[in-house]
Amino acid sequence: MSTEKIITMAYAANTKDSPLSLYKIERRSPGDNDVLIDILYSGVCHSDIHASRGEWGSKNFPMVPGHEIIGKISQIGSKVTKFKIGESVGVGCFVDSCRTCEQCKIGDEQYCENGVSFTYDGFEQDKKTATYGGYSTKITVDENYVLKIPSKLALEKAAPLLCAGITVYSPMRYYGVKKGDKIAVLGLGGLGHMAVKIAVAMGAEVSVISRSESKRKDALDLGAKEFILSGENPKKYANHFNFIINLISAPNDYNQHLSMLKTNGTMILLGAPSEPSAIQCFSLILKRRKIGGSLIGGIKETQEMLDFCAKHNVLPEVETIKMEQINEAYERIVKGNVHYRFVIDIADFARKQQES
Amino acid sequence: MSTEKIITMAYAANTKDSPLSLYKIERRSPGDNDVLIDILYSGVCHSDIHASRGEWGSKNFPMVPGHEIIGKISQIGSKVTKFKIGESVGVGCFVDSCRTCEQCKIGDEQYCENGVSFTYDGFEQDKKTATYGGYSTKITVDENYVLKIPSKLALEKAAPLLCAGITVYSPMRYYGVKKGDKIAVLGLGGLGHMAVKIAVAMGAEVSVISRSESKRKDALDLGAKEFILSGENPKKYANHFNFIINLISAPNDYNQHLSMLKTNGTMILLGAPSEPSAIQCFSLILKRRKIGGSLIGGIKETQEMLDFCAKHNVLPEVETIKMEQINEAYERIVKGNVHYRFVIDIADFARKQQES
Repeated sequence: MSTEKIITMAYAANTKDSPLSLYKIERRSPGDNDVLIDILYSGVCHSDIHASRGEWGSKNFPMVPGHEIIGKISQIGSKVTKFKIGESVGVGCFVDSCRTCEQCKIGDEQYCENGVSFTYDGFEQDKKTATYGGYSTKITVDENYVLKIPSKLALEKAAPLLCAGITVYSPMRYYGVKKGDKIAVLGLGGLGHMAVKIAVAMGAEVSVISRSESKRKDALDLGAKEFILSGENPKKYANHFNFIINLISAPNDYNQHLSMLKTNGTMILLGAPSEPSAIQCFSLILKRRKIGGSLIGGIKETQEMLDFCAKHNVLPEVETIKMEQINEAYERIVKGNVHYRFVIDIADFARKQQES
Repeated sequence: MSTEKIITMAYAANTKDSPLSLYKIERRSPGDNDVLIDILYSGVCHSDIHASRGEWGSKNFPMVPGHEIIGKISQIGSKVTKFKIGESVGVGCFVDSCRTCEQCKIGDEQYCENGVSFTYDGFEQDKKTATYGGYSTKITVDENYVLKIPSKLALEKAAPLLCAGITVYSPMRYYGVKKGDKIAVLGLGGLGHMAVKIAVAMGAEVSVISRSESKRKDALDLGAKEFILSGENPKKYANHFNFIINLISAPNDYNQHLSMLKTNGTMILLGAPSEPSAIQCFSLILKRRKIGGSLIGGIKETQEMLDFCAKHNVLPEVETIKMEQINEAYERIVKGNVHYRFVIDIADFARKQQES
């Protein structure tokens, strides 16, 4: 094992008020259980913007965002058994966890009781080495936190599965979405469009609910059976759905949505409004309804999701951008002007950096 | 089948502003599938007060409350197969339902999609014949909505099982309480004391959380492993419980309670504050927590609960009162001065009515 550091080019926010710009980071040389990945694509998640603009209170600057990483393995440690050089792999929202707590043991590392190591804006398990994300040319990761990308999945599209995909897949499995269920997807953005595709692939009957009539065509094109304008025909949709996947990140009327759930229905809460929302207890009590949260997914389940998506031909809608376009892309995301996920062509960025 | 009506003495609220007083009602003569029950005991539920004082907006006056009914069968219809004359039986919160909807078919009649017939302050399935509850000497009920009282259960104590008991038992089963789970019971009243006893009988490790130090001794006497003063030692109890059974009927801080739940923990919401409570989404998302409601239980599950209580020697703590003491009992309930359920001695009332 070499202790030599690997110089890696990246884009970082120097402070919460800076646009992203070129930045040089170091990656550790692969340890016995590590793989070194040449990054090819990195998805752009709305949370990258929140984090790098300090909107969630982070002080970890300079910050290199990116937790939807696709690449090829270029080096492996001496004890690596799961991967070979040249293999297509992915890295999602975390790169390590304690491996000893109850949650890690059952494979729900995202809920690690001792603190997961987020892929960026976090720390390795030593709690002091900063982590840097996928807006960079290389990354070193323990093989146990790396995913295999099935050959059927187009690499330039697969990146968003590693956050947007698993974030909607995991709760659908956990809360028990099954064939024939009526599912409402509330909010058609990056996560919403994956929720539609995955729920349809699971055999559910999907409706998209949105305040914006302009989403109708997209909703139906993505596989939804119907589009419902928010608040439309409340009688028809009362006690109607088995699940509502609530992806709205602005404060919204939980009670109105709950009234659309059948007896025993579940509202899966994934959107994260900064303000609390009010719940009238009778919305839950009278029909034994539930509200449940969920956070990304564990490594095993993420692999299951990738295999599921390969089997069912589920891939996000992406627009590929150059690294230099990232600040412009951020602005477009904030304005909701993306269908439905930007993916940075990191291979192009790496080539340009080598040439310069 | 006789069409003769059965004159029955009762206590009723004539209007929402009246105290309860003597009132005469008619019960139908038992039809082919009906049993006529001589009522022996009737539990006094806090909801009797809300309903008979019009606090839930009812206009069904005069109103005869009471949905925790214990009695003996005195007549049976020609097609009754489940019961014999002289058997000890119970009637809970409802006396009929549509029997054809999805919920009725699976035995969750309490969620009947066409409207359950509540035992009082409601209507029979014809949607026009008013129902009158257990503060009365006799009641006629279809045998399919009648429970068998196991001989091991003392009749003078069993009545509160039919609402307080099933209301806490059903969600514990539905949401999956199991042996060894850490459970917090929030609020030690009529429902709370049954929640402690039933959860302990299920093998759970029960803590009672209350704002009132005066509940400590009772909590421990009832079988709780510990008593926690609200807000005490938040660090110790963070991420601590598998379940919180929230029975508080005043507005309360859901987020504070949710923070006490482990990953995948559930707050079972049974208390019904009239004002909505705010939920901060991260309370649910970061540890995949849930909030779920529940409403009483179905007939099959109520029978299961009665058998469970007989097997595990679970009975409520009751104070038996005379019918004439009901208005005074109401005042004491409103003041929280009851340990933990009043039960009206209806046999005594019937005797006095016959003598007069």
